[in-house]
Amino acid sequence: MPHGTDSLLLQMFTIFVWAKVFGELFERLHLPAVLGEILAGVVLGPYATRFVLPGDTIYSIAEVGAVFLLFTVGLETSPSDLIKVGRLSLRVAVAGIVLPFLMGFLFLKWHSEPTHEAVFVAAAMVATSVGITARVLRDMNVQKSRTAQIILGAAVFDDILGMLLLGVLVSTVTTGGVQWLHLGLVTFEAVGFAVFMIFVAPRVVDRLEPGIQRMQTQDAPLVLALALCLGLSVAATRIGMAAIIGAFFAGLAFADYSPRWNLEPRAQAINQFLSPFFFFTMGSRLDLSVFSRSVVLVALALSALAVVSKIVGCGLPLYREGWRSMLQVGVGMTPRGEVALIVALIGLQMNMISQRAYALVIVMTAVTTLLPAPFLRMLFAPTIAAGAPSEVSAEVQVTGHLR
Amino acid sequence: MPHGTDSLLLQMFTIFVWAKVFGELFERLHLPAVLGEILAGVVLGPYATRFVLPGDTIYSIAEVGAVFLLFTVGLETSPSDLIKVGRLSLRVAVAGIVLPFLMGFLFLKWHSEPTHEAVFVAAAMVATSVGITARVLRDMNVQKSRTAQIILGAAVFDDILGMLLLGVLVSTVTTGGVQWLHLGLVTFEAVGFAVFMIFVAPRVVDRLEPGIQRMQTQDAPLVLALALCLGLSVAATRIGMAAIIGAFFAGLAFADYSPRWNLEPRAQAINQFLSPFFFFTMGSRLDLSVFSRSVVLVALALSALAVVSKIVGCGLPLYREGWRSMLQVGVGMTPRGEVALIVALIGLQMNMISQRAYALVIVMTAVTTLLPAPFLRMLFAPTIAAGAPSEVSAEVQVTGHLR
Repeated sequence: MPHGTDSLLLQMFTIFVWAKVFGELFERLHLPAVLGEILAGVVLGPYATRFVLPGDTIYSIAEVGAVFLLFTVGLETSPSDLIKVGRLSLRVAVAGIVLPFLMGFLFLKWHSEPTHEAVFVAAAMVATSVGITARVLRDMNVQKSRTAQIILGAAVFDDILGMLLLGVLVSTVTTGGVQWLHLGLVTFEAVGFAVFMIFVAPRVVDRLEPGIQRMQTQDAPLVLALALCLGLSVAATRIGMAAIIGAFFAGLAFADYSPRWNLEPRAQAINQFLSPFFFFTMGSRLDLSVFSRSVVLVALALSALAVVSKIVGCGLPLYREGWRSMLQVGVGMTPRGEVALIVALIGLQMNMISQRAYALVIVMTAVTTLLPAPFLRMLFAPTIAAGAPSEVSAEVQVTGHLR
Repeated sequence: MPHGTDSLLLQMFTIFVWAKVFGELFERLHLPAVLGEILAGVVLGPYATRFVLPGDTIYSIAEVGAVFLLFTVGLETSPSDLIKVGRLSLRVAVAGIVLPFLMGFLFLKWHSEPTHEAVFVAAAMVATSVGITARVLRDMNVQKSRTAQIILGAAVFDDILGMLLLGVLVSTVTTGGVQWLHLGLVTFEAVGFAVFMIFVAPRVVDRLEPGIQRMQTQDAPLVLALALCLGLSVAATRIGMAAIIGAFFAGLAFADYSPRWNLEPRAQAINQFLSPFFFFTMGSRLDLSVFSRSVVLVALALSALAVVSKIVGCGLPLYREGWRSMLQVGVGMTPRGEVALIVALIGLQMNMISQRAYALVIVMTAVTTLLPAPFLRMLFAPTIAAGAPSEVSAEVQVTGHLR
């Protein structure tokens, strides 16, 4: 084979192995594996040891990896479960998005950052990644408690709202400057897309099912799901949104069929292969030289703000249920993850944010991901004493998220 | 996301969908899906309608797809089954490799083709792809008959011997010209690699098993298998062989653990995603303008030779068992597939074969894949009447091969 492929395979091997080695080490220290994979990229990448300098093809593979990552997140987000978890979860999700966005934006504006940069960083502060919380709750066997169910439901709404916000953002930025009419149109477009994918698309899949069963192609449901994932990613970019938004909604359309067609473990297998390239290159883009003393301080302040605004925002709608429930839900919703990273990455690629702002988001993601677990264990300890049922439902579908 | 990724996703979507649409049409016509995927590339590619012009990244993805294709083939090739099927299968495999290689080589030399081209095309005529045969046998429920077992066993040896031949070939060509000492060394190296992977590597995996169980990484066995696949691909290119040889042997090392760790369906999922890009680009590289009347005649003559030499070569070792058994095994071993295609592709990329010789191999693969199925049904009809047991064993592991 030509030299190009050889060196591509060598890069893929090196990145895959190091990402997984760092991930394994992090898991053994009871830290999230993704942070290990990102750190591998930081340590071995062009801004530190320069041991691995990812080429263009690796970056392309990483972005396809991001698309599949969000596809899998969508696949774990069952629209029919949404209707069950109800309005309280929706209120938790909305308040938990509005408050971090506003506080992040105002903090950065007050810190004299340009508006577009403040908007992107604030948007990255929005989306909860509930994988770690789901795992802690499962380990403690409290996933069926009332607050756990609220968290898992809110996280699902949160994903969708985060995607909508990102869609509006990218679309607005692409046209340059905020025009209110355009903003309105884009919001309408994004909401329409979401509503269609949540309420109409699953029914279309429902109607198509007999036809899919009759298809002769091997693994026809998986093939169709992959085709829709690629197709909606392209469609999303065509209407000016990010590709991952299409991928997410493609996953959503198949979510209710995922168990019957055994889609999730197979989508996860593709993910296991591709996502290390995404997380590694996320790390490799982090320019360590931006970390002056003042940037570290801003990063820590922003991280604190991300934690506090999420706890307060998500806790408030539960004011009637006492401080423990408020804290359980607030702390449970604190971790950010892949969506935050992707928002920052898109901002970086669109030249909307600087290397410095990119670094802020990485630190914020790391802090919000690392902090909550021990507090969550403390907060849920009394729930265990009260005895929680052991049935597993929505939780199983969320676990794969961010490990 | 930048323009590059958008157009990459669009190309991926277009190729994936068209490959699968052609595959589905072929399946409905009871023809192998892979041929449909290749035809999609021919029809839509740069030498015909120019509807899709694959970019560099697509070609890279296609080659990673080839690596995973051979990894999956290896995963379905259980070394411990090899020992069971015994010497008769080995004799069938060896004779079924030597005869097509010699006859192909002599025919092309007689036709005044350059030696390196004759060697590559002859090597592409060697490897049986038993997927279609396995499917016919299973449909007829005769997979446990004696001749069916001989076929399935021989196909496994055949894969390994084909890989060895390719390894020696690539390595010899890379150094330029045939030097007997070097040829001896390379053969020794390739055989050593094969012996190590068949006899030693599974034991290493065996020893590692408790460690793998203790690993904290999600899907640790899959992750390790993927890492080994990439690692041995790189190693193979380093000792001058083709990357796919390393991938094949990596699969082989995990084959005996594949059922316990549920590796095969998940490797297949990655395959389902990546292999259409490989087959489509295979087709898109086919320059239709080379098909003059004389080339078509040579292609048909070579295809006939490929069929006859395989039937005679594989039938001969069974001369004591009567003509029906000889024909059953010979016809069953006739289809060529992905290995033939990859050998031709490597030849093309190394400038060892011309566009014309590449076209010969594609035609030969199509003919040998399309012809045997109806004859196989006729030949096995009496076996059904005699009543075959219904137990399923090695067959299941081979079915995924070439659909």
